Amino acid sequence: MRVAVVSVGDELLVGDTVNTNAAWLGRRLTARGASVERVTAVPDRVADIARVVNEYHAEYDAVIVTGGLGPTHDDRTIEGVAAAVGRDVEPNAEVLEWLTTEGGYAEGDLDAGTTELPAGARPLHNVEGVAPGCVVERIYVLPGVPREMEGMFEQVADEFEGQRQHVRQVVVDEPESTLVERFTRLQERFDVKVGSYPGDHVRVKIQAIDAAEVEAAVAWLRERVDEAEGNDEAEIEDDAADKDDEDEGSDLG
Amino acid sequence: MRVAVVSVGDELLVGDTVNTNAAWLGRRLTARGASVERVTAVPDRVADIARVVNEYHAEYDAVIVTGGLGPTHDDRTIEGVAAAVGRDVEPNAEVLEWLTTEGGYAEGDLDAGTTELPAGARPLHNVEGVAPGCVVERIYVLPGVPREMEGMFEQVADEFEGQRQHVRQVVVDEPESTLVERFTRLQERFDVKVGSYPGDHVRVKIQAIDAAEVEAAVAWLRERVDEAEGNDEAEIEDDAADKDDEDEGSDLG
Repeated sequence: MRVAVVSVGDELLVGDTVNTNAAWLGRRLTARGASVERVTAVPDRVADIARVVNEYHAEYDAVIVTGGLGPTHDDRTIEGVAAAVGRDVEPNAEVLEWLTTEGGYAEGDLDAGTTELPAGARPLHNVEGVAPGCVVERIYVLPGVPREMEGMFEQVADEFEGQRQHVRQVVVDEPESTLVERFTRLQERFDVKVGSYPGDHVRVKIQAIDAAEVEAAVAWLRERVDEAEGNDEAEIEDDAADKDDEDEGSDLG
Repeated sequence: MRVAVVSVGDELLVGDTVNTNAAWLGRRLTARGASVERVTAVPDRVADIARVVNEYHAEYDAVIVTGGLGPTHDDRTIEGVAAAVGRDVEPNAEVLEWLTTEGGYAEGDLDAGTTELPAGARPLHNVEGVAPGCVVERIYVLPGVPREMEGMFEQVADEFEGQRQHVRQVVVDEPESTLVERFTRLQERFDVKVGSYPGDHVRVKIQAIDAAEVEAAVAWLRERVDEAEGNDEAEIEDDAADKDDEDEGSDLG
């Protein structure tokens, strides 16, 4: 399942806000086996939202849109998503019902537009805030406030799935450039995807659907790193276990 | 000047890394008066990099691409950018010259491909690392490691410019929904852009090129917020001054 994330908000583009929502969604979607193909931040403009959502809706299995829900003039996401799929925006009876019962609001207290969604959308209730989200044609519209977004995503999380990757990470204390030849041999020998992330150390991420293949590749690389270091101590850390607490299965690192 | 940022790297899409580079670039570009129109994260795949860079190159005045530079198999940005503009990838003599003099490397120590750039590109030297960046047809290619990216951006920062916005932020202790009507009147009365960001407080961002217009709008809103709070104390903070240290002019907030 290939997914695109669209993050709406000028504050992301000017750098007032770091896009932690996209990273959170990336981790959750990856843990479920879905593949995140794009994360795009767009301004608070209906035409921009509509254009990007329309393009990704045509290309990917699902689109998650975050941000731009609410009562003020710069909350344009519902209008943009409706335009992307050629639907009107209209009051949603189920949203009104939920807000005036579970939500505890009097109808007169709700701002104009609060109950409006693209016509025919399935509402998603906001247990942490007011503005509802929705699902329309595999486009999932969620709030921008992190705790609201996270709470609403969990209501639909099981609609995202795929073949889960077994992931292991090896940390190496050599310059990345010295590893190039070993990476080539690793990929010739094993059916795994290898990512290399330089920093204070080089983090080598090895992944595949087949857990045994990943373990064999990790063992092979570990041996060749130990050799290069001229000793047989474990110079490599493996932090796969550290990440399991975030995941749903033990085969996710 | 309208700019798009393309952030290359699977680690961004799966949420292993939060895209702080894009936020940093957003702040620097906005401070110079450039308008950031898109920030898109793409996978470490040549076709994906080429497609997005090509689209944004056609649409915006400049594109900044970060990440995916280096010696390993998952560093595909140079190839992707070259494909986006229909150029070959070839060794760049200026890069080799710089790395073997200023850089302090022997030619034999450099990995295959280290000196390769799209044909005809202007090289950007990496004073904090090895892999060079470049500029080709208003596409700026920078590393993904933050200190390398920041050092290289500063070499070309003065190629990004626009009409600087005067920005002031007002923090209000009322629910966002109660402000809707005042925002409408504010925008009818003043030629300013108003952004509203809910959280523990509502941050109201008021901006325009004309500083006097912004100050008048801030004073108008402040008075109406004080009235609503039933007192004449300043219930609002203004943090414009806090941000000036990052900016080049005192008219940037």
